[in-house]
Amino acid sequence: MMKKITLLGSTGSIGINTLKIASQFDKKFKVVALAAQKNIKLIKKQIEAFTPKVAALCDEAAAEKLKSQINTKKTKILSGADGVCEAAAYAGSDLVVSAIVGSAGLMPTVCAIKAKKDIALANKETLVMAGELVMKLAAKNGVNIYPVDSEHSAIFQSIMGHNKNEINKLILTASGGAFVNSTAAQLKSVTVKDALNHPNWSMGKKVTIDSATMMNKGLEVIEAHHMFDIPPEDIDVVIHRQSIVHSMVEYIDGSVIAQMGIPDMRTPIAFALSYPERLPISIPKLNLTKVRDLTFEKPDLKKYVSLKLAYDAIKKGGVMPAVLNAADEVAVASFLNGDIKFIDIPKVIKKTMTKLKNDGKISLKKIISASTEAEIIAKKIIDEGVN
Amino acid sequence: MMKKITLLGSTGSIGINTLKIASQFDKKFKVVALAAQKNIKLIKKQIEAFTPKVAALCDEAAAEKLKSQINTKKTKILSGADGVCEAAAYAGSDLVVSAIVGSAGLMPTVCAIKAKKDIALANKETLVMAGELVMKLAAKNGVNIYPVDSEHSAIFQSIMGHNKNEINKLILTASGGAFVNSTAAQLKSVTVKDALNHPNWSMGKKVTIDSATMMNKGLEVIEAHHMFDIPPEDIDVVIHRQSIVHSMVEYIDGSVIAQMGIPDMRTPIAFALSYPERLPISIPKLNLTKVRDLTFEKPDLKKYVSLKLAYDAIKKGGVMPAVLNAADEVAVASFLNGDIKFIDIPKVIKKTMTKLKNDGKISLKKIISASTEAEIIAKKIIDEGVN
Repeated sequence: MMKKITLLGSTGSIGINTLKIASQFDKKFKVVALAAQKNIKLIKKQIEAFTPKVAALCDEAAAEKLKSQINTKKTKILSGADGVCEAAAYAGSDLVVSAIVGSAGLMPTVCAIKAKKDIALANKETLVMAGELVMKLAAKNGVNIYPVDSEHSAIFQSIMGHNKNEINKLILTASGGAFVNSTAAQLKSVTVKDALNHPNWSMGKKVTIDSATMMNKGLEVIEAHHMFDIPPEDIDVVIHRQSIVHSMVEYIDGSVIAQMGIPDMRTPIAFALSYPERLPISIPKLNLTKVRDLTFEKPDLKKYVSLKLAYDAIKKGGVMPAVLNAADEVAVASFLNGDIKFIDIPKVIKKTMTKLKNDGKISLKKIISASTEAEIIAKKIIDEGVN
Repeated sequence: MMKKITLLGSTGSIGINTLKIASQFDKKFKVVALAAQKNIKLIKKQIEAFTPKVAALCDEAAAEKLKSQINTKKTKILSGADGVCEAAAYAGSDLVVSAIVGSAGLMPTVCAIKAKKDIALANKETLVMAGELVMKLAAKNGVNIYPVDSEHSAIFQSIMGHNKNEINKLILTASGGAFVNSTAAQLKSVTVKDALNHPNWSMGKKVTIDSATMMNKGLEVIEAHHMFDIPPEDIDVVIHRQSIVHSMVEYIDGSVIAQMGIPDMRTPIAFALSYPERLPISIPKLNLTKVRDLTFEKPDLKKYVSLKLAYDAIKKGGVMPAVLNAADEVAVASFLNGDIKFIDIPKVIKKTMTKLKNDGKISLKKIISASTEAEIIAKKIIDEGVN
C-alpha cells in the first residue's frame, strides 16, 4: 500500500533528501502535500515532479507568484502560516515529515498532531520549545513520533525491542563541529567561513553553526529528554569525531546498544518514512576496517559553553528551553551576518536567559510569546553590544 | 517466580560465573541441577552452596568418591555420560545452561532439548558439530536457544526488535588473540605461555588458544550461521583489539546495530539466564571516553589459517565442521602438552580434513563417529610428525 506523505520544509536539506527517497521508492510513497518558506524556484520543480494535491508557501507574496507558474487545478496553493498549518493537517496524508528549520516548525507540527497524523520529526525546535506539551498532545491523539535526526534515530533503533525501563542512560555522540581541534582561546578569532566548514555532515547553515558551538547537541539533549522520557542527568554527550556511531543506549546490565552507519541523512530519513520496514537505499555501506579508528572524548564545557547552557535551560524548565532556542537563533543569524563574533553566541544566549522571566509554568501560547520576547531581547543585547 | 536452572559444566569458567550471578540474584534463580567432568573439590563446594536436587559427574570414579563426601539425601549423584544426560533432562528445570567445554557438550545439550528445556548455550561445539540438526530439533521441541558467547549475545541483542529478513550481514568482532601484534613468521617460535596470554578475556585454556589461532572465531562463524540462519558469506570477521564492540549486525539500509560493553562474561550470561529481562549485575560500566579508541582491522588469513579452514569446513558441509572441531581439539591439546608447535595446529586440522571422507549427509550418529574418527586421524598425524 502506498504511504501518503506530507513534507513540511520541502526546499531544505532534509526536505530534498526526503524527496530523493520518495523518488527512489515511488511504489511505496506518494507525496501529497508540500510546504516551504519562499523558495519558489525549487518548490515549483518539486510540484512538477511529484504533483502533490496541496502546496503551501509561508511567504504570501511568494505564494501568489507561484500560483501563476503552476497548474493550480492539480495542486492547490496555500499561503501564510495558516496555509502551512492547513497543509500540515491535510486529511489525505498518512505521515507528516516535519522538516521546517527553526522555531517556525513548531506550530505546523502541532497542527499535524491535532489532525492525528504520525510525525517524522526533523524539526528539533518542536520538542526543544514545547516537548512536554507536544508529547502529551501526541499521546492524546494516538500519534507516533519517529525521529529523523541521526542521533535520535540511533537511540530509537537502540531501544526497539528492548525494555525502556531498563535504560541506564542515553549517550549522544557529537562530531565536535568545525572547531573540534581548536582551543577555547582560538575560538576568539574564527570566521563565518571557518564555522561553516563541518567535518562530516552536509547540513543547513544554522545547524552547521550550532554544531560548531555544540548548541546543536544541547538542543538534541532536550529533544531526547522529551522524546524518550529520560531525565537530562541520564543523557551524556561524547565527542566522536568520525560521526559513525550515531548514538547509544546503556542498559542496567552494562550492555550498550549503538546504531552506526556512514554519515548520511538518508538512512534516518528513510527509516522514519518506512518504519518498521527498512529500505534498501542506495548509499555506500559502512566499512569499519576502512574507517579503522573510532574515537570518543569528553566535551570541554569551557569551550562548548552553549552545551552547558542547554543543560541549564532544562534544569530551569518552563519556557527556558524555548528562550535558549530563540536567543540562539538570533545569535547565530547575527554571527552569519557578521554582526557578532563566534564566541559572542553563547554570551547572547546566557544574557537573554538571565533577562527573561520564567515562572516554570507552560502553555503553547506562553512558550511562543516567551520565544518572541527572547528574540527581541537577544536582538537588543546584540544592538547594544554584547560585552 | 523463581527460574529453575540446570548448569552443565559447573566447574568451568562459564559455570563459575553463572553461579556468581545465581548467588547475586538468589530471589530470581534456583540452581536445581549441576554437572561437571570430575572436579570433585569444586562441585562439592557448589553442592554445599546451592543444594541442587541432582549433580552429575561424567567421570564415574569421581562420582563414586563424591557420593561419600556429600549429603546424598539432599542431592542425588549421577555418573557417566548417561548421568550427565539425565541431569541435562532433569524435569524440575526451566533452563539448561550448556557450558561443558568441547565436543563433550553436544549430547547433553541434545538431551536437554529433547526434554523440551530452553537452552542458554555456551558450548560452541553443539552448533559447530550439529547445527542443522540441533536447530531443527529445537524448533520441533519448541525450545528457545539463548546465546551465552559474548559475540552471539551481541548479535542476538542487535536483532531483538528488528526484522531478521532485513539483515545484510553479521559482523563478528575478534580480539586477534595473544599474537595480534605478531607476524605470521613470528608465530613459528611462540610458546604455550605466550599463547595463553590473552589480551582482554579471562577464559579457559582451550578457548584462549583457539583465540590465538582465531579458530575460536571460525567456530563462532559456524555457530552464528546456524543460530541466526545467515549464510557464511554474509558473516564477516573483523579484528577489534579492545573487545568492547562484541559484534554487530548490518541491515539493508546501511544501519549497523552493535552491542558493546566491557569484556566481562557475566553480561551475556546474565542476559541468557534472565531474558527478556536485564539484571543490574554489579560490573563496571563501559566508559568510552576512557577507552578513547576503538580500532577495526581485517584479519590476515595467511596468519590466521584456522579461520580460513573454518569457512572451508562450512562450504564443504556435512560432517566437515565436526571434523574441523575434533582435529582442533586434538591439536590444541597436543600444543598445550608441548607435543606440537603453535603453527602446527592448523596443519593438523587441514590434514585431518583432507583425510576424512565426507558425503555431505548428516545424522547425529554420523557426526559423532566422524568426530571420533577425526580425533584418531589427528592423533596419528601428530604421532607421525606433522610436517
